[in-house]
Amino acid sequence: MKTLQTYIDKLNALNFKEMYNKDFFLTWEKSDDSIEAVFLVADALRYMREQNISTKVFESGLGISLFRDNSTRTRFSFASACNLLGLEVQDLDEGKSQIAHGETVRETANMISFMADVIGIRDDMYIGKGNKYMHEVVDAVTEGKNNGILEQKPTLVNLQCDIDHPTQAMADMLHIIHEFGGVENLKGKKLAMTWAYSPSYGKPLSVPQGIVGLMTRFGMDVVLAHPEGYEIFEEVEEVAKENAKKTGGSFTKTNDMAEAFKDADIVYPKSWAPFAAMEKRTDLYAQGDSAGIDALEKELLKQNAEHKDWTCTEELMKTTKDGKALYMHCLPADITGLSCKEGEVDASVFDRYRDPLYKEASYKPYIIAAMIFLAKFENPTEILKKLEEKGISRIFE
Amino acid sequence: MKTLQTYIDKLNALNFKEMYNKDFFLTWEKSDDSIEAVFLVADALRYMREQNISTKVFESGLGISLFRDNSTRTRFSFASACNLLGLEVQDLDEGKSQIAHGETVRETANMISFMADVIGIRDDMYIGKGNKYMHEVVDAVTEGKNNGILEQKPTLVNLQCDIDHPTQAMADMLHIIHEFGGVENLKGKKLAMTWAYSPSYGKPLSVPQGIVGLMTRFGMDVVLAHPEGYEIFEEVEEVAKENAKKTGGSFTKTNDMAEAFKDADIVYPKSWAPFAAMEKRTDLYAQGDSAGIDALEKELLKQNAEHKDWTCTEELMKTTKDGKALYMHCLPADITGLSCKEGEVDASVFDRYRDPLYKEASYKPYIIAAMIFLAKFENPTEILKKLEEKGISRIFE
Amino acid sequence: MKTLQTYIDKLNALNFKEMYNKDFFLTWEKSDDSIEAVFLVADALRYMREQNISTKVFESGLGISLFRDNSTRTRFSFASACNLLGLEVQDLDEGKSQIAHGETVRETANMISFMADVIGIRDDMYIGKGNKYMHEVVDAVTEGKNNGILEQKPTLVNLQCDIDHPTQAMADMLHIIHEFGGVENLKGKKLAMTWAYSPSYGKPLSVPQGIVGLMTRFGMDVVLAHPEGYEIFEEVEEVAKENAKKTGGSFTKTNDMAEAFKDADIVYPKSWAPFAAMEKRTDLYAQGDSAGIDALEKELLKQNAEHKDWTCTEELMKTTKDGKALYMHCLPADITGLSCKEGEVDASVFDRYRDPLYKEASYKPYIIAAMIFLAKFENPTEILKKLEEKGISRIFE
Repeated sequence: MKTLQTYIDKLNALNFKEMYNKDFFLTWEKSDDSIEAVFLVADALRYMREQNISTKVFESGLGISLFRDNSTRTRFSFASACNLLGLEVQDLDEGKSQIAHGETVRETANMISFMADVIGIRDDMYIGKGNKYMHEVVDAVTEGKNNGILEQKPTLVNLQCDIDHPTQAMADMLHIIHEFGGVENLKGKKLAMTWAYSPSYGKPLSVPQGIVGLMTRFGMDVVLAHPEGYEIFEEVEEVAKENAKKTGGSFTKTNDMAEAFKDADIVYPKSWAPFAAMEKRTDLYAQGDSAGIDALEKELLKQNAEHKDWTCTEELMKTTKDGKALYMHCLPADITGLSCKEGEVDASVFDRYRDPLYKEASYKPYIIAAMIFLAKFENPTEILKKLEEKGISRIFE
Repeated sequence: MKTLQTYIDKLNALNFKEMYNKDFFLTWEKSDDSIEAVFLVADALRYMREQNISTKVFESGLGISLFRDNSTRTRFSFASACNLLGLEVQDLDEGKSQIAHGETVRETANMISFMADVIGIRDDMYIGKGNKYMHEVVDAVTEGKNNGILEQKPTLVNLQCDIDHPTQAMADMLHIIHEFGGVENLKGKKLAMTWAYSPSYGKPLSVPQGIVGLMTRFGMDVVLAHPEGYEIFEEVEEVAKENAKKTGGSFTKTNDMAEAFKDADIVYPKSWAPFAAMEKRTDLYAQGDSAGIDALEKELLKQNAEHKDWTCTEELMKTTKDGKALYMHCLPADITGLSCKEGEVDASVFDRYRDPLYKEASYKPYIIAAMIFLAKFENPTEILKKLEEKGISRIFE
Repeated sequence: MKTLQTYIDKLNALNFKEMYNKDFFLTWEKSDDSIEAVFLVADALRYMREQNISTKVFESGLGISLFRDNSTRTRFSFASACNLLGLEVQDLDEGKSQIAHGETVRETANMISFMADVIGIRDDMYIGKGNKYMHEVVDAVTEGKNNGILEQKPTLVNLQCDIDHPTQAMADMLHIIHEFGGVENLKGKKLAMTWAYSPSYGKPLSVPQGIVGLMTRFGMDVVLAHPEGYEIFEEVEEVAKENAKKTGGSFTKTNDMAEAFKDADIVYPKSWAPFAAMEKRTDLYAQGDSAGIDALEKELLKQNAEHKDWTCTEELMKTTKDGKALYMHCLPADITGLSCKEGEVDASVFDRYRDPLYKEASYKPYIIAAMIFLAKFENPTEILKKLEEKGISRIFE
């Protein structure tokens, strides 16, 4: 039987000191031990919640969320994570508060942080901007803390930037770990991160980039598949190659969806926009060239439409390992005949995997909470132990 | 002197097992004992708050609110109820999250519920839709819980649907109980639920339906009065008739406001739209027929204007029992000469009853909290007792 | 070394009984002892937070915020203060709830207050309106409490009205006290509250009015400087004169910025609109005269542009006491060459004072929390003492 001590023992064997008082930008900036620690703490927090043990480590404090894009899932995941730890969420609505870059970022970051323990940011719209903006915020509050303005430095959680989507990729990975009965069973497993057709345009690259940037660290054979012209950020491919080299797996690319699916243990078919096109769009926005943006949009939709055969059908699923690959998606998916005429996946495939897909999503609040937990406590295992000993019920009994 | 034990003793005499782990859709789906239990727990929670005893039963957890209509009162009532029990409110803003029916409901309901203990929904705009939507949400999270996706099934509180407005009707009833010194004093009392003129159009039917569906359960003589053509949902009238039959009261209808007011102990004059017209509007919306909707709106305003004499005047009030009937309204009222030229009630009548009207409204947060409390605890009396024994102050002292 | 007892001893020497169960509208309506008590409690709360001692005095309860203007800083300050004490913030969004004056204020104020311990309002747009509106709200909830509708009267915190900006002025003053090593060191210090050029129009008068209304109480020589035609509210000037007379300082006026800066210990250069123009604008709005408003706006911008030389330059700073006056601003400032072409202050001056400016802002959440604390507890020192003895950690340890 699992006990909290199981998680604590595993954590005690790891070195994740770099997490304390730091921020979470990109998974590949963190050591293997740190990544493993996030998974363990996420599982431990979930275990405690299931046992009705409160993990409220903050009596007061704010978790600030800043979304530059509509979002239900990530918004609720962040709110859930904060609430689980005792932080109250306060939204920073840019419409209401006119944040911009530069001087204003520095000022606003400090003004909202007097009692903030966490800042969660989603900013994935423009290439070269989102991750940079997060760093500006972190630099500002670090300076604020060092100069005696802030009593604490809020920790940043990257809730999706232009480069990575670490909370998504790590929730996905934790799902894989549980589905395959442990990280030790992943060596040699084949994972296909493949492009899929969607009638909508400009889906962010952070998911495929996050997936190949993280999944290559566990000895798996990761295949990135997409039509020609849908290349992702080259630097992330380099990360994936380096990862694979170090951990005994492989990272390969193909322009053939069938090849990627062949004998795959895990498939992740999902639409995205070409990196080069997104870079171009960012420039057009900067220039305020709305005619150019319209033209680009038409071009991209036309380009997409040439690849309607890139879709996760029952036939393709049959070619996977024993015809039973784990189908994954960050949701919401474009489901053929259901949410759109032609989309990323057959309705029957999606339907068969609904429960695992929802389960996959269910890890995200715990991943976020674990990132916060590891940033806030120097000795997280001691804190977990004390919480169990204190044994306050989450729901009164 | 009242003590908490008074409430506990009364609760112990009732059988409200059906409330545990269930949802609150319509009052007439609940047994008399369950309805009584909601009143008792509401009073007990209010008593404890007055004694500065914390009733915070959740250390963490979310209460999710979904309003498909602007709302101050119900929004704050729900937020107050959640806060009283320790839940943090998180709004699901449909504008920001693009929720729709069908597949998406199932998915979104699960995505927002990983740490949700309660979901409160207000969806009263379209006939045949609101209550159905609530059931879709409950079905989705029940399945989610059964399939191991959710660790808890959030309980649904119907904050107003197309059929019933249970938290309003029950707050109203609790007000009546207190005004008349106990439910045992209501037998034979006459309650007039009557239509009244308003210059605005399309007010929801859920209030009159909720009132006749609930108030007929306490042995009162309930009269429903409205001009011809302002019929409410027939099925609810059937419920009211059945109720009256079972509990020794009566349910009658009239097209004469004066007749309804005559010797009434309680009057509830309030505008609503004809059920048939609201059904038609729902169809027009579904067809996207905006010209048809405009025409219907004009027609309804014209129809309303033919009944400006349906208004709660001082003269009419004089005809009630001893000229002192309890005047009720769900607020905000259309007050003649104050909020509009001609409306539902004379300014002097409204003014005289302001305090009772506000008091009436004050029960709603406690009714909502009681519904949650009874859904979450198998032995609510034991929990109340333990909370009292623990005796944590709501405000530090 | 500072201990909590230091603050408690000082508080015990003061008489601030008038604060209990009351509201905070204008600083000059409060006694010197009460003002001093707010500073002491603010410092004590900050001290406790720095020591990781929880000051959560509410187990449950709502802090309602009502902003009639976009706001990041004040919004977060209020949210932080509420959170520090254990209150959950609930925004009253007027767009969503259609609040108006008169009858509706009375009703809405009660409807939102069933579980509200605090209401924070910012309403500074129209002369003669904001403060009046706050009084309407307070009158309504006081009546509600007296008539048995509300179990508690929420306390009002004025987060900026048309007359005063008490939380800003008091945060500013607390900053001065700390910078000068104690209120006892302020006698004879020169503070220049001066107008400065801004390319934007209609900045509120509540800041300069709040500053001269408060800062004249500490024996300082307060100079109000502005171009002719930029007069502030005459009644506030009278307050400043009276204050100065009582406390041995002085209050003088000049139309010469250089004269104000000469040998000043503290400078506060900031743009505002002429009181007379703001009165006129309020009337034009009331009349719905949009052409008149447009004409007024143009006129005011033109008038502003005649005074671009009213700006806080390095040259001017050199003329202050030892060239080292404390530069203050409520933020955000219009910084020349940074946020605008020509503005209130040179970029190099602003840059040099960034840390003190952020520190200045950091006092606001504590000032608000202190106002709430003193309104809610009859014996605040006893409560502070008990909180320390209980010693619950804000962050678990």
